[in-house]
Amino acid sequence: MKLFDYFRSSAAYRVRIALNLKGIAAERAFVHLRRGAQRADGYLALNPQGLVPALVTEDGAVLTQSLAIVEWLDETHPRPPLLPADANGRARVRSIAQSIACDIHPLNNLRVLNYLTGTLGATEAQRDGWYRYWIDLGFEALEKRLEAERATGRCCHGDAPTLADVCLVPQVANARRFNVDLAPYPTIVRIDAACNELAAFADAAPMKQPDAE
Amino acid sequence: MKLFDYFRSSAAYRVRIALNLKGIAAERAFVHLRRGAQRADGYLALNPQGLVPALVTEDGAVLTQSLAIVEWLDETHPRPPLLPADANGRARVRSIAQSIACDIHPLNNLRVLNYLTGTLGATEAQRDGWYRYWIDLGFEALEKRLEAERATGRCCHGDAPTLADVCLVPQVANARRFNVDLAPYPTIVRIDAACNELAAFADAAPMKQPDAE
Repeated sequence: MKLFDYFRSSAAYRVRIALNLKGIAAERAFVHLRRGAQRADGYLALNPQGLVPALVTEDGAVLTQSLAIVEWLDETHPRPPLLPADANGRARVRSIAQSIACDIHPLNNLRVLNYLTGTLGATEAQRDGWYRYWIDLGFEALEKRLEAERATGRCCHGDAPTLADVCLVPQVANARRFNVDLAPYPTIVRIDAACNELAAFADAAPMKQPDAE
Repeated sequence: MKLFDYFRSSAAYRVRIALNLKGIAAERAFVHLRRGAQRADGYLALNPQGLVPALVTEDGAVLTQSLAIVEWLDETHPRPPLLPADANGRARVRSIAQSIACDIHPLNNLRVLNYLTGTLGATEAQRDGWYRYWIDLGFEALEKRLEAERATGRCCHGDAPTLADVCLVPQVANARRFNVDLAPYPTIVRIDAACNELAAFADAAPMKQPDAE
């Protein structure tokens, strides 16, 4: 397996965590997003969206979109499971994951920030305000859920990591990088800390990657 | 089952299609997004994110996030299947779905457009340009995939509707509403037309809903 990766990409970070949890040592290729390597013809032939991550499987299939990749990993390498055994539990875990992967992260992607400051002429302060606004909006709702719902454990769903934690930890890392005040989100902070005690999460952190700058 | 719905929500539109494909007649409640009904205390107690759709199941569980809901429907009502039988096929269908549900739709959500024109003071022309930009960017990549990949059939994956089509058709409807030129995307247009020949898709269209205005 070969992962097309970039240390700062929080979508790639999710896949790095999942690979670590599954104990899979994938080959790595680094796509330097800030230098525009994702728009090189070679990479676009692999992934027309020009985004990371992409995962090339042993049989040569090219998988894209981080949540689809993590579900594929979970289906093809079932131990340890990253989704609960029951349908309601799976729906809860996917919902938490998607509340981050659909409703926070895409709004704060590099290409979106570039559109704000470039095409729309937003200031850096406006860009950073935008970034924090969507994290706060998403985390306020997520904190309420995690605090209120009995399925929450040491991790987002029970005591073992799932797809939800795979999404949460990279999002918390982004929040810290943009100086979001996390004091209003004690459950999120607690779960993030518990996950990062596991090597699978800690070793996937951006600054531990070979391409980190 | 009870669906919390809004005719214009393309995330709710996905769930309406899936319910129709599964032959499930769910009770409906309408949350008027433009009047802010999603921020009423009663609805926030149900879904702290204040977004539609939400689906309350027979056993009282509240499911949120459209893709999580559709996967739950597929797991609990397996016929007809909305995901392929093989892991690579499922990864492809989920990737297409997420390229819409993560990388196009959240950028064009009502709350995002309101932030652009309100907080950032964008003009209506800038807002509409933003809307079309993200659809074009997403559709350019998706058209390339659908045109090139052999798994594409009458629908996004083979000849029967999947989760990918459940996401594509509402996104094409949004593109038309904002006058996006669809001529560069003949495969997308062809698949959209094929799907809309099916009553499950046609009956889920925004203007056919009881709350349509």
